[in-house]
Amino acid sequence: MIEDKNQARTSLAELGEFGLIKHLTQNFKIAHSTTIKGVGDDAAVLDFKNKQVIVTTDLLIEGVHFDLSYMPLKHLGYKAVMANLSDVYAMNGMASQITVSIAVSNRFPLEAIEELYEGIHLACKNYAIDLVGGDTTSSVTGLLISITAIGEAKAEDVVYRNTAKTNDLLVVTGDLGAAYLGLQVLEREKQVFEVNPNSQPDLTNYSYLVERQLKPEARKDIIKLLKDLDVKPTAMIDISDGLSSEILHICEQSNVGCNLYEEKIPLDPQVIATCEEFDLNSTTIALSGGEDYELLFTISQEDFPKIKANPHLTVIGHITDKSHGANLVTRAGQQIELTAQGWNSIK
Amino acid sequence: MIEDKNQARTSLAELGEFGLIKHLTQNFKIAHSTTIKGVGDDAAVLDFKNKQVIVTTDLLIEGVHFDLSYMPLKHLGYKAVMANLSDVYAMNGMASQITVSIAVSNRFPLEAIEELYEGIHLACKNYAIDLVGGDTTSSVTGLLISITAIGEAKAEDVVYRNTAKTNDLLVVTGDLGAAYLGLQVLEREKQVFEVNPNSQPDLTNYSYLVERQLKPEARKDIIKLLKDLDVKPTAMIDISDGLSSEILHICEQSNVGCNLYEEKIPLDPQVIATCEEFDLNSTTIALSGGEDYELLFTISQEDFPKIKANPHLTVIGHITDKSHGANLVTRAGQQIELTAQGWNSIK
Repeated sequence: MIEDKNQARTSLAELGEFGLIKHLTQNFKIAHSTTIKGVGDDAAVLDFKNKQVIVTTDLLIEGVHFDLSYMPLKHLGYKAVMANLSDVYAMNGMASQITVSIAVSNRFPLEAIEELYEGIHLACKNYAIDLVGGDTTSSVTGLLISITAIGEAKAEDVVYRNTAKTNDLLVVTGDLGAAYLGLQVLEREKQVFEVNPNSQPDLTNYSYLVERQLKPEARKDIIKLLKDLDVKPTAMIDISDGLSSEILHICEQSNVGCNLYEEKIPLDPQVIATCEEFDLNSTTIALSGGEDYELLFTISQEDFPKIKANPHLTVIGHITDKSHGANLVTRAGQQIELTAQGWNSIK
Repeated sequence: MIEDKNQARTSLAELGEFGLIKHLTQNFKIAHSTTIKGVGDDAAVLDFKNKQVIVTTDLLIEGVHFDLSYMPLKHLGYKAVMANLSDVYAMNGMASQITVSIAVSNRFPLEAIEELYEGIHLACKNYAIDLVGGDTTSSVTGLLISITAIGEAKAEDVVYRNTAKTNDLLVVTGDLGAAYLGLQVLEREKQVFEVNPNSQPDLTNYSYLVERQLKPEARKDIIKLLKDLDVKPTAMIDISDGLSSEILHICEQSNVGCNLYEEKIPLDPQVIATCEEFDLNSTTIALSGGEDYELLFTISQEDFPKIKANPHLTVIGHITDKSHGANLVTRAGQQIELTAQGWNSIK
């Protein structure tokens, strides 16, 4: 029967806007005592008592930020939440609530939006986040997602970008460049598929890269780790646009310079192997790749013993006077000015 | 010279994302002591001390929510902020911050986005709102705006939708239906213009309607007025989708019924005259028109003397037991069931 081959397709118009919101949000549980009122009124009501409130927002557009031909909707939902939580953690805060607004064209049936919300739901569950509001509307073309994340921190715990000091150490979490390479691998497979729709992609050698692209995790664990280690960074930022651009933000806003050591940049073996295969410079990829959602922070040198040998943290350089500039020190010992695109000599 | 006729067109790509945000937000001043950190870090940091935090968000899409052929960008920016503030006021809170995310296709030059932000800036100035964050990105088609508004209230002052009680009075602010009629007038003018581009629209007779559509004001003044009058509504909602749908929200969520008196619904003389001209039923327009951004609330009967004869407030009905249903009492004394679309007999 032909009907059996069809996936379920329920038109969004059947539910209406209020019905859709109710349907999509019914399985979301409230986890935080700070959430006084979630979905269902003109606005959400939150109570943070004596904590400060951290607010960040992101907008993701189909065809600009994601390509549904290789990004499953569930992963997209998950990743959209991660991108926002990462910004809250980068303030040394704990994320607690999100609002999610989506616009969808009529090419999306209810089942597609349910899949997107499955990913959002999983992200909320894994990170203990309350969905407290949003908006659902139609779009003329494609899908777009706007998420606002809200978190909390004690006033004395919040870490800004503009407070790095000369001689501080520059520390990065995890490893870099994998998410960008994952995207290159997926785009190559898409091109192969377009030429030969029967080809079966073998992504075994790229599993880590593809996972970093399709299912990134925000570093909530690092915020806990830093508290456990009794380390308060002097400045912090999340790495969404590539290491180089984020280091420059810290340097500019803190009015300092830095030395970043090429040989210290943490790279996964799959990143090194795939860079060789694609004939790419792995340092360039780490500096400019983006979407890693790792954290970059500076610490006072006296905190070094506390973080030393921690497998999640790598010291990649140190802060200098502003007059020194922001520089990459290559493996050959050469000092090259950092730019938002990587470094100046390869532009 | 041909060049003199051209409006300035600066490509957004020239500025880059960070340059654009800096450029657009440089004139925004911080007005609230609750804003610890606004634009310029991974997230904003707010401090509400012992107040509760109110959060609401809205998404506006070109071709769905607005038509730039008769909605000037400055007005669009202003209105987008109003729609969000209105939701905060509807919780009996004071709005204090917004985040603004926009996506624009490359048909918009910098000057267009500046105009949009002029409207946002004016709204922030008029309502004492701090712009504390956002996102700026490109879109595949058209313009979209996602705004999140944040406000504050003492826990005991917050007013929800689900707390109306039997015998409470149903009160509405301002007058209804004008924004919807303003849209009808503008759409008619657009059609005339398309047939004859040299025609000059004469909107003198519709000035109030057009202003309500293009430059609505959120009712911050009512929240202050209610405090001055020492009236705390028992339930409240803003009228963005038409009176009927909002009354039903209060009735359903509060588990009550109501009588709404047709003859009490406040209408501006221009609404009455234009309804006659367009051969529309003014009650239908008030019930279903939408975009009025007035407030609908219920008060205890004992508070009636405090609001009596106030020109901003009209008692339009009262709350009944749920078993009574939600009804419109017509001028002829007939009782008709209210539906989200108006009332049942005219569907």
